[in-house]
Amino acid sequence: MNSRRHLEILKSVVRKSERKIALVVLDGVAGYRTTNNPVTELEAARTPSLDRLARRGSLGRVIPAIQGLAVGSGPGHLGLFGYDPTDPMNEIGRGVLEAVGIDYPLKKHEISGRGSFVTLDRTGAIVDLKGGGITDGECKRVCARMQAAVAEPIDGVQIKVLPVRDHRFCIILDGEGLSSALLDTDPERTGVPPFQPRGTDDSISTRRTMTIFAIAVTRMLDAICVEPKANGFVLRGFSRDPGLENLQTRWGIRAAAIASQPLYRGVAKMVGMTPIPTGHSIADAFRALFGAWNDFDFFYVHIKKTDLAGEEGDRAGKIAAIEETDRFIESLDSRLDDVIVVTGDHATPPQMRAHSFHPVPLLIASPFCDVDDANRYTERESIRGSIGTVRACEVMQLALAHSGRLRRYGA
Amino acid sequence: MNSRRHLEILKSVVRKSERKIALVVLDGVAGYRTTNNPVTELEAARTPSLDRLARRGSLGRVIPAIQGLAVGSGPGHLGLFGYDPTDPMNEIGRGVLEAVGIDYPLKKHEISGRGSFVTLDRTGAIVDLKGGGITDGECKRVCARMQAAVAEPIDGVQIKVLPVRDHRFCIILDGEGLSSALLDTDPERTGVPPFQPRGTDDSISTRRTMTIFAIAVTRMLDAICVEPKANGFVLRGFSRDPGLENLQTRWGIRAAAIASQPLYRGVAKMVGMTPIPTGHSIADAFRALFGAWNDFDFFYVHIKKTDLAGEEGDRAGKIAAIEETDRFIESLDSRLDDVIVVTGDHATPPQMRAHSFHPVPLLIASPFCDVDDANRYTERESIRGSIGTVRACEVMQLALAHSGRLRRYGA
Repeated sequence: MNSRRHLEILKSVVRKSERKIALVVLDGVAGYRTTNNPVTELEAARTPSLDRLARRGSLGRVIPAIQGLAVGSGPGHLGLFGYDPTDPMNEIGRGVLEAVGIDYPLKKHEISGRGSFVTLDRTGAIVDLKGGGITDGECKRVCARMQAAVAEPIDGVQIKVLPVRDHRFCIILDGEGLSSALLDTDPERTGVPPFQPRGTDDSISTRRTMTIFAIAVTRMLDAICVEPKANGFVLRGFSRDPGLENLQTRWGIRAAAIASQPLYRGVAKMVGMTPIPTGHSIADAFRALFGAWNDFDFFYVHIKKTDLAGEEGDRAGKIAAIEETDRFIESLDSRLDDVIVVTGDHATPPQMRAHSFHPVPLLIASPFCDVDDANRYTERESIRGSIGTVRACEVMQLALAHSGRLRRYGA
Repeated sequence: MNSRRHLEILKSVVRKSERKIALVVLDGVAGYRTTNNPVTELEAARTPSLDRLARRGSLGRVIPAIQGLAVGSGPGHLGLFGYDPTDPMNEIGRGVLEAVGIDYPLKKHEISGRGSFVTLDRTGAIVDLKGGGITDGECKRVCARMQAAVAEPIDGVQIKVLPVRDHRFCIILDGEGLSSALLDTDPERTGVPPFQPRGTDDSISTRRTMTIFAIAVTRMLDAICVEPKANGFVLRGFSRDPGLENLQTRWGIRAAAIASQPLYRGVAKMVGMTPIPTGHSIADAFRALFGAWNDFDFFYVHIKKTDLAGEEGDRAGKIAAIEETDRFIESLDSRLDDVIVVTGDHATPPQMRAHSFHPVPLLIASPFCDVDDANRYTERESIRGSIGTVRACEVMQLALAHSGRLRRYGA
């Protein structure tokens, strides 16, 4: 695979630098123009600080993964951190994302699956895929009930049942020599029972894992059969930590993550970032950033509000979130000798109320950037920026280059 | 190869949609500007309908296969259909293209080679590479003569000799267990005899095929040795149908091909499109398109005139072909909820009278497209379009994304 070879080359030319790199990710920030709405949220927002940064910086655009593909936050962020999310080596399973999303300290050998409570009828067929809409509290109670049923290890394997939210939970298999080659038990429709546990291969390890798992499933189902709503469950995305090379090893940088939500913090931890304690507000994020400024080389700052507004179709809210972020961007603008990168993990156009495939504007300000003709951090201006269109997994190497951390390759 | 993995990912997120996709391929439509000719044919043409579509659509540019590479119609179209023509798995041999080019219904097991009649002197050396310029009628007659000489199957293998045009014909080997690992017999110069039949490997299958083939060649040469012009032949591009995954399997779409010429219809059939009967005029093509509109999800419409004019260096003719197409594009403009894609399979600049490596403008109009600042379907405007520069094999996934057929990837 090409990108692996490119990575090898880049790693061979890394050197030290004192310059800091701040990567500000405005979640879902990009949008698109329509005939009736000829300006995007980024264009409509008043952004004096981003404008100033854009004037002295270079602009470009990011394709999160593949042309035409809308990505989730997991692959979107992995890409920005320099890990090609389309490379199977970098794949983070659903189960793992769910575990890191509740701040569970997943160990390398553990298998994690994503669970959903369902309601079963007398014949065992699913009648409700969301467990009758149970509350967080009920979820916690039913999970405790299941946990009690599998309190004893099975063949040395400890089962952990962790409530997530609503009808969702997480199941962890903690033991040696387990396999993650287990199929989903979720038929994704009502009227049929959940699938029996099955493996995707016939190895000894998979067969043993499947046997242990089948025993656990039976015990847990027995424990909840009297529940009025959550009397069954389906499981998906069995996976383990892919063991990604960390940023310190790869680039010799100490990286910090400033993200209040567990999923983002979790992905950042998986690439070796140190999570900095922070609150939910944008002010909290920038306070945490400057509090940690002297202790790290690289900072990932996550701004969630832009995506939330996009998902709700709230154009005004998205504009407000951009403007609020802009006020804090000002504090970065004075760092003329450092590298400031502003981008998003994907587009979330309010018109679509969903993640989309549209390119995301990218801004890099540094002592080495081309002061191009693109003067605002917007979709329109980024088209004529001097960085051009790059894949998300190329952003990290561009940031390193702009910090002077990449030596010349070859004579 | 990266693109295979990307394809796997894209296939994993396909969903249904009611939106139609119309891919209008203006063959060889792109050109380039010179100091003396500062506007291209697309710029010189009056194209009110394309202009309107461009204003509400997104523009970009297509690299047919690899930067700097001019492609033939085969690889050019394969790319636009989403099959990377540089992936050996997608290779369509010359022999196969020749067979589909005369509408021969090539079966999976058959081997096809491309033949050219030559004139041999008494020593057996080639004196004319085009068989003395024989007519279609003579070609047909000489082919029939050769066919009669190999009427009997050889070791169960039926040989078929099919006239194409001028001095060109096609030879088909129809039998079980054949190999296509045969070398060209064409020395590509006069003064030497054609090469003897040889295989490229030493497998049993190749050796058997070669033996059968050598017998056939001897019998056919004996049959035409008395011909005044076409008394010999050379053979190239032995190949079989690569068995491409069809569009229905890959994307769940029913695809129709509207192309009057056999080669285009043949390539379309190889990816599972249903050919719609049509005439040679642009009006015929659009009539066929709307006649089939309700029965398919995807439509490929081929416009040949632009390429023909380009090949002849006929700038005015190319402009006229663009303007003629534009009048029919109007009927697509009202399909606001569908996806209209306009592009070409390669450039054919009249200055070069040949296919060239220049990028080809791309236009996508859909409910989800960014209404960018590019307002005409021209080389100049497409540079500042919001799609950017993509490879031809990314056009299909962009079309699918714009039709809402690709779900989000990852959590």
